[in-house]
Amino acid sequence: MTLLPATRTDISTKEYLALFTLTSGCAAIIIAAFRSRGEPIVASLGFSGFAFAATYCLIQWLGDAFKKVGFKGKDMAKTHRPEIPETMGAVCAVVYIMCMFLFIPFPFYEYLVQTSGGGNRDYEIEVQQSVVGRTLHRFPHNKLGEYLSAILSLQSMVFLGVADDLFDIRWRHKILLPAIAAIPMLVVYYVDFGVTVISIPTMLQPYLGRLLNLGWLYYAYMAFVAILGPNAINILAGINGIEVGQSIVIALLIIFNDILYISQPGHPAMNSHLFSLYFLLPFLGVSLALLRYNWFPAKVFVGDTYCYFAGFLFSVVGILGHFSKTLMLLLLPQIFNGCYSTPQLFGLIPCPRHRLPRFNARTHLLEPSMAQFLQPPKKVTVVLLTAMEKFKVVKLVRNEEGVIKECSNLTILNLWLVWFGSMREDTLALGVMGFQLAMGLVALGIRHGLALMVYEYDNLVKWDRA
Amino acid sequence: MTLLPATRTDISTKEYLALFTLTSGCAAIIIAAFRSRGEPIVASLGFSGFAFAATYCLIQWLGDAFKKVGFKGKDMAKTHRPEIPETMGAVCAVVYIMCMFLFIPFPFYEYLVQTSGGGNRDYEIEVQQSVVGRTLHRFPHNKLGEYLSAILSLQSMVFLGVADDLFDIRWRHKILLPAIAAIPMLVVYYVDFGVTVISIPTMLQPYLGRLLNLGWLYYAYMAFVAILGPNAINILAGINGIEVGQSIVIALLIIFNDILYISQPGHPAMNSHLFSLYFLLPFLGVSLALLRYNWFPAKVFVGDTYCYFAGFLFSVVGILGHFSKTLMLLLLPQIFNGCYSTPQLFGLIPCPRHRLPRFNARTHLLEPSMAQFLQPPKKVTVVLLTAMEKFKVVKLVRNEEGVIKECSNLTILNLWLVWFGSMREDTLALGVMGFQLAMGLVALGIRHGLALMVYEYDNLVKWDRA
Repeated sequence: MTLLPATRTDISTKEYLALFTLTSGCAAIIIAAFRSRGEPIVASLGFSGFAFAATYCLIQWLGDAFKKVGFKGKDMAKTHRPEIPETMGAVCAVVYIMCMFLFIPFPFYEYLVQTSGGGNRDYEIEVQQSVVGRTLHRFPHNKLGEYLSAILSLQSMVFLGVADDLFDIRWRHKILLPAIAAIPMLVVYYVDFGVTVISIPTMLQPYLGRLLNLGWLYYAYMAFVAILGPNAINILAGINGIEVGQSIVIALLIIFNDILYISQPGHPAMNSHLFSLYFLLPFLGVSLALLRYNWFPAKVFVGDTYCYFAGFLFSVVGILGHFSKTLMLLLLPQIFNGCYSTPQLFGLIPCPRHRLPRFNARTHLLEPSMAQFLQPPKKVTVVLLTAMEKFKVVKLVRNEEGVIKECSNLTILNLWLVWFGSMREDTLALGVMGFQLAMGLVALGIRHGLALMVYEYDNLVKWDRA
Repeated sequence: MTLLPATRTDISTKEYLALFTLTSGCAAIIIAAFRSRGEPIVASLGFSGFAFAATYCLIQWLGDAFKKVGFKGKDMAKTHRPEIPETMGAVCAVVYIMCMFLFIPFPFYEYLVQTSGGGNRDYEIEVQQSVVGRTLHRFPHNKLGEYLSAILSLQSMVFLGVADDLFDIRWRHKILLPAIAAIPMLVVYYVDFGVTVISIPTMLQPYLGRLLNLGWLYYAYMAFVAILGPNAINILAGINGIEVGQSIVIALLIIFNDILYISQPGHPAMNSHLFSLYFLLPFLGVSLALLRYNWFPAKVFVGDTYCYFAGFLFSVVGILGHFSKTLMLLLLPQIFNGCYSTPQLFGLIPCPRHRLPRFNARTHLLEPSMAQFLQPPKKVTVVLLTAMEKFKVVKLVRNEEGVIKECSNLTILNLWLVWFGSMREDTLALGVMGFQLAMGLVALGIRHGLALMVYEYDNLVKWDRA
């Protein structure tokens, strides 16, 4: 067996031609950007296209090898429950990380180093690049540590994600894996930046002052954000295309927010948002290629690896870009999904092993899946469920005596089906993605509007008057 | 299944007590070093002890889980060919990398950063630490990029090593995996240091000048060194304890060489050798714990992952410490083993799938394994083998007509058995390790002696006169 069984492939000649054209174009862009020391953002776009093409081919080529070593799963929402390759997020992640390695020379200054012979570095002179006429300039050299620590953390997360897909780690343990992966980022933050001061909202300033030093609590907060991202993506999962689809929508929303900052020349937060942009563009590349295979009817599964990878990437750019609160606003549907699930997670309502929507083999549509009450529910559960039923956020089935026998599983996917009726898998995925997009745009609007009321100034508008 | 089946373990209470004492002592050392901003080398020793204890426990705890997902192999040199866990090098590598993350705050300066609010870095002031009375001082902050890139490359190597153990990649491809893993290190070298100038030996200076700029050839050379290390360790393998044993000997030799430099206060190459030391001490910790399980009779196998990890680590410290030529001297037995194998690798002599020594079930000793000639060998092969027989570097078996029917497989392990007769597995491993140690010490002696003849000065002695 080999990693590249070139004999068997289902990529058509037309697709190969298109991918070849894309790759050549991107290679030309990257080489031109390197030679002319051009805008890093142009190179980043080139790498994104390249990442798309590479992921597109590799997923096709490696599918059989993945199945052979046991990375496979049954698609339960299809008539014949086909067995397809799993953990394809690992392919995305490896291509992505490789692109991020090769991108390094573009956004960073070059140094001239003088040595005393034998390769020992004695002192260095920074080559000041002319930044005249540039909006999207390069990073100062000391941001390199931050960049490398971010990739280190991401790579650790992918490594642990693959270990999870392989060993099937218990959920109590796996929730904490992102905190372990965040260690290099937090340690480098500590030696490289170390600022643990936050601004206080205007209304609280009389009590707490303008700035508050959180100390080690700030690191705990960063670890919390690191845990939030991957688990947010991981919990809204289970139907074709939903993991990749929601990640692409969130990435687009963050990119939109980044562009709002970058389009204002000289904004103090510009570097942070450039950083975010450089990390998200190649992510879009690999994710779009994965979506092509994972969209209904799926030919591959993405695996927990992808959820860890995507969610952790959002956490990383949120933390290092200092917009973790904005990030949380963009993850509101996921956070709602998590809160909505708690009655099942904490045992108030029975929690079956899988809560994904039920596939109706007769209609070929998805229906809300139901949790069965084997014993009559407790009083508190009845009160809770009856209240939820009033607000139409749960579907209940009662027997003749009015005792609750079944309730729809408490996930956003089942709720969507309760609200809008049975539908095909891709319609459901599209609906939730559209909801995510709409919520995100509203959240960004409110965030930049409200900030003026809560803080003295929003860091997007009026930053120059601060 | 879970990663930590705490129910079943074969670590005795006495061992637990010893490990607990070691861990507590190391934790105390690390905390004290952190609080007092003490010598990084002391913290490094603390982390090494901690790494030993963690690896010791994890290998025991995770053995069954590894076997369950298919990381297992049969020990062919035992009577009953027991099936034991494989790829335990991955456990070592993960513990090691985690320790290297946590070690970061010790050798690096801290910065004071001023922000304009909102967490945007505006400018920073380096906190100049007093280095009075210190021999083993800290690194300048800009070495952080180098450190992080080294860990990134190592982690990539471990990731690809696990992929190899999982997918069983073809040897033509796997030889090149280290070059891929080296990319982050080479890219960061490019943006961070970028020196591609080498000193020319005195005798060649009239033709080439004192210094020569190799340009991109220097990067090709670094990639070559990166490929050399892992493959050197990988090719001298196959009996209990040999992979870890040789790696520990090589690490000790490099550490000895490092100490020669560090013991001279103010030596210009001191930082490079401190760097090497910080990377090798925790490696010793994890490797000694692994050796305890992998030594005859082995309870676990190390897997290709360990060979990649160990060999690549040597390449990394050799490249970034600018002593890659010295490193090659220390790898001479491995390089000899590679050259000695070429007649089999290039098909002059038949090459069976496994060339490890043959286990004699009657005597319980290892004997040289033989390659069979199904057809009479070609003329050139006969000439070569007869010449090698004269120099006693091969064992031949002829039929009555004098036609060569068998020859011992061309590996250093079989050669050792040809020279010194059948012996038990651990005696063979110890013999080869002793040989490696002796060769290494001689090589270091010659290297520091000869350097004065080839260059104007050795960079160990007389550097201050240069």
